[in-house]
Amino acid sequence: MLGLMQHHDLMISDFLVHAARHRPRAEIVSRLAGGIHRQTWVDTARRARQLARALGRLGVRPGDRVATLAWNNHRHVELYFAISGSGAVVNTVNPRLAPDDIAYILEHAEDGVLFAEADFASLVEQVAGKLPPGLLRQVVFLCDAADLPGIALPAGVAITDYESLIDAETDEYDWPRFDERTASGLCYTSGTTGRPKGVLYTHRSTVLKAMAVNAADAIGLKAADRLMPVVPMFHVNAWSLPYAAAAAGTSLVMPGRFLDGQSLYELIEAEHVTCASGVPTVWLGVLAHIRKTGGRFSTLERMIVGGSACPEALFDAYDELGVTIVHAWGMTESSPIATVATPVPGVDAATARRQRLSQGRVLFGIDLRARRGAEEVPWDGETAGDIELRGHWVTTGYYRMPKGTTEDGWFPTGDVGMIDPDGFVILTDRSKDLIKSGGEWISSIDIENIAVSHPAVAEAAAIAAKHPKWDERPVVIVALKPGASATREELLSVYEGKVARWAVPDDVIFVDELPHGATGKLLKTELRARFANHLIEKPDGAAT
Amino acid sequence: MLGLMQHHDLMISDFLVHAARHRPRAEIVSRLAGGIHRQTWVDTARRARQLARALGRLGVRPGDRVATLAWNNHRHVELYFAISGSGAVVNTVNPRLAPDDIAYILEHAEDGVLFAEADFASLVEQVAGKLPPGLLRQVVFLCDAADLPGIALPAGVAITDYESLIDAETDEYDWPRFDERTASGLCYTSGTTGRPKGVLYTHRSTVLKAMAVNAADAIGLKAADRLMPVVPMFHVNAWSLPYAAAAAGTSLVMPGRFLDGQSLYELIEAEHVTCASGVPTVWLGVLAHIRKTGGRFSTLERMIVGGSACPEALFDAYDELGVTIVHAWGMTESSPIATVATPVPGVDAATARRQRLSQGRVLFGIDLRARRGAEEVPWDGETAGDIELRGHWVTTGYYRMPKGTTEDGWFPTGDVGMIDPDGFVILTDRSKDLIKSGGEWISSIDIENIAVSHPAVAEAAAIAAKHPKWDERPVVIVALKPGASATREELLSVYEGKVARWAVPDDVIFVDELPHGATGKLLKTELRARFANHLIEKPDGAAT
Ligand SMILES: Nc1ncnc2c1ncn2[C@@H]1O[C@H](COP(=O)(O)OP(=O)(O)OP(=O)(O)O)[C@@H](O)[C@H]1O
Ligand SMILES: Nc1ncnc2c1ncn2[C@@H]1O[C@H](COP(=O)(O)OP(=O)(O)OP(=O)(O)O)[C@@H](O)[C@H]1O
Ligand SMILES: [Mg+2]
Ligand SMILES: [Mg+2]
Repeated sequence: MLGLMQHHDLMISDFLVHAARHRPRAEIVSRLAGGIHRQTWVDTARRARQLARALGRLGVRPGDRVATLAWNNHRHVELYFAISGSGAVVNTVNPRLAPDDIAYILEHAEDGVLFAEADFASLVEQVAGKLPPGLLRQVVFLCDAADLPGIALPAGVAITDYESLIDAETDEYDWPRFDERTASGLCYTSGTTGRPKGVLYTHRSTVLKAMAVNAADAIGLKAADRLMPVVPMFHVNAWSLPYAAAAAGTSLVMPGRFLDGQSLYELIEAEHVTCASGVPTVWLGVLAHIRKTGGRFSTLERMIVGGSACPEALFDAYDELGVTIVHAWGMTESSPIATVATPVPGVDAATARRQRLSQGRVLFGIDLRARRGAEEVPWDGETAGDIELRGHWVTTGYYRMPKGTTEDGWFPTGDVGMIDPDGFVILTDRSKDLIKSGGEWISSIDIENIAVSHPAVAEAAAIAAKHPKWDERPVVIVALKPGASATREELLSVYEGKVARWAVPDDVIFVDELPHGATGKLLKTELRARFANHLIEKPDGAAT
Repeated sequence: MLGLMQHHDLMISDFLVHAARHRPRAEIVSRLAGGIHRQTWVDTARRARQLARALGRLGVRPGDRVATLAWNNHRHVELYFAISGSGAVVNTVNPRLAPDDIAYILEHAEDGVLFAEADFASLVEQVAGKLPPGLLRQVVFLCDAADLPGIALPAGVAITDYESLIDAETDEYDWPRFDERTASGLCYTSGTTGRPKGVLYTHRSTVLKAMAVNAADAIGLKAADRLMPVVPMFHVNAWSLPYAAAAAGTSLVMPGRFLDGQSLYELIEAEHVTCASGVPTVWLGVLAHIRKTGGRFSTLERMIVGGSACPEALFDAYDELGVTIVHAWGMTESSPIATVATPVPGVDAATARRQRLSQGRVLFGIDLRARRGAEEVPWDGETAGDIELRGHWVTTGYYRMPKGTTEDGWFPTGDVGMIDPDGFVILTDRSKDLIKSGGEWISSIDIENIAVSHPAVAEAAAIAAKHPKWDERPVVIVALKPGASATREELLSVYEGKVARWAVPDDVIFVDELPHGATGKLLKTELRARFANHLIEKPDGAAT
């Protein structure tokens, strides 16, 4: 028997309608090249309606993919809502990817229209040159007519500016309603372990995810908050924060392209930011600035940190500054937040600390398990396994690729970790980075953390090097701090007593710099390409 | 184009599975006649699985309605999850209703099985006698075999006790998955304005509602909270709190039938309650106890108050005690929470105060409007209209009755109020209680609030009395405090300067006590039946 409740499909446009109607006072503050721009959610809704009409005029039809190459600012928010809201698919593209990768994505997604910041004019020029003719038909630069960059694009690609495009439209537009499982967004993974793969979100997954994010024990936005999402809108919907902010009527403070420590700190202070979110490196930058200047936070209360493991020292440093770091974990394929490390009452201090530093517990709406082969591993906080996810905002696979879930419907995350009895996940590695030495699993992250505890080390990467006897053995590749020095033996001695004998790296390789991908993560693929045969080529184990 | 995200129907059983798997430490504490009972969500899930099997053995099939007459305790939580989770419909019945009304509901709902507290044995006996033979086939008393009450039920009605029923089962049970629009619960309205009407919730509406309730700016439960729901589980799913608590892993502290001020206060203190919820009268009782004893709250932080308007004095009294009251509004037909009064930044102090005392702003997932005739009224905080709702947890109508929404899909709440520019609802009346005097709308609530501001008045009700010239005119019916006295003229003089001249009541009627319904609300229907002709019968306006 069906119930009698109203049925409304879960629509992304409902966030915007809700914010404009019921949270009219909240604003979006954007740091642009020319200074600070402010508008309310009412303005945002009006401009998004104009944009939705403009998209229709540009020939964008339901299901069409539309690309963005943009920073966090009000126009990108308008694009999120207008593209998805009108039934098309917003394909956010990471401008830090190599032009080849960007072209690969635009071609794979078949984006006919591209919205790009004027800063990216020459990038757009390069990328457009690599695309098959006829694919891209319109580039819209996110500026007004006066700032339109003068570039040459291939024949058949029209150029216009965003403000003229929407100025030509009235704001009379009714958001269409359709099946909530309709595709709303397409985001490609970071490409840390291979070619970027496209994840195709739905209206339903996006709405459920944003509702889950607003739970008090997750990110928990309030109308009284002023949120600075440093996590880019060009990657995994900025952790759903633009949607969650619209639902709560939270004001957004958008840093644009000004992402250095000083700029972020100054914006936090000037705009009374209460809550921020981003990857650890960003907060290291802000911390360095504060340490240099002796600054303090007057309004910032909490920070959601994820994307890669948050170092213990960062928690402590921000605690001292009166700002609580909340650790979260996820991936493009899980929209991305799957777990958040919020506290459990009644545990002892050591457990509380371990749980806080962990990647967290699942939000309601997500389930997880860890397996080693066919068997699930016990939730003892000690036995590592391959972590798999299931839930309303987890993908079944990738765009234009075969299905990616297990027989029984779980998504293999590619991350390896332990689960403690309270359900907290402690990531130890990516499965591709795991070092499998004679049947033992050695965590590359553990090895790296120990290496960076040496004062001379700026950054370290542990990889599996091929080994004739053990199959794989760990080697650690380190970049020293400018002016610092350390020997192979000094570094290896740091491991004594910290890991089992068989987990101590076989060698240390010194390099000037480690390679990073477009979201700032270590590119171990490159390191493996260079050093996988290191122990075979140098069976004596001598340092390079 | 459909997206690629996983599809899982939104199922009520997922709350329980989630809590047991990912929030195992949280507990349900129940105050029973014999003392305090404690169990974790893991225990609760196990017992609910046993119960689900037992339901099958009792012949309960998907879609069947199963009634409960129960207090807030762990068994009632198990019933919520086992009945809905197995695909049947939990029909919570208010034990404070008259036996005739209870029999009406059981017959209307066609409940074949009834779970009832042992305290209600004689009530069950009375009610069973009023039912058509063959309808009710099983009564399960919520106790163990030793406490099974010895009563005589009509032939064909089996009796057993809950603990024996579930003890007979293993806990091997896989919660079925089915269409999320399937009926999950059936709750009848309070019957304040007429016969109770049945609202048929769905799994989808229940899950979405509970997710919305956990938003930081709504009720916002956390794992670190210990919640005492005083709001009864026999009415509108205790404001979704059992579900929301399972999602967050919040511990529940269940007061059972011990609802007097002293019992509640002692339980709050003994069990370190951080958050509580209930109607204003309950908190008046706790306040009276505290004032008498000079008690303090050591852990209580906040209280969600709704069900009827929360008096201004209650906000202030609890503020002084360090407990924040959050006001909420809704009805059986909206599952029930539609609005919550959480603060908006950047408003002046007077506005902030008004908004805090108001019924609040809609949660994301609900939309509202106010109309006078065909026209929407402006959101100026001054113009009252009939309030209508739309949203994921709002009903289309009533069980076995014609559709209840407007042509364009809105549910008329029967409440009248203003909406301010920030979207806050200020209720002024129920439309059936509104006094329409010569085309003007006079709020009965305003008239009552002014009457109770007189120190001699314990409670007041304003109703529309028929009037030959003005159609309707207000009269106020008052019950004085024990030992207090006041004259008609004294009371009418209180209105001077507080309302427009035409809004001053035409008469004051003194009574010993005002009539209340099963959820503690004033029964103006009864007062109108007695006093609607008061001004016609006594055209000279003399006091009774
Ligand atoms: N809090 C965290 N701690 C540790 N690792 C994290 C955390 N958050 C995210 N990660 C890592 O980031 C990954 C998700 O990143 P993303 O989806 O952007 O692409 P990627 O996995 O780096 O790239 P690709 O899948 O293309 O190789 C996770 O699978 C995990 O390895
Ligand atoms: N915060 C509040 N302030 C004022 N009134 C409230 C508040 N919360 C609830 N109410 C009143 O309670 C009503 C909902 O109550 P409920 O659904 O239990 O049944 P009822 O409306 O009293 O009974 P019936 O519909 O059978 O006449 C609302 O429509 C409103 O009139
Ligand atoms: Mg990945
Ligand atoms: Mg009602």
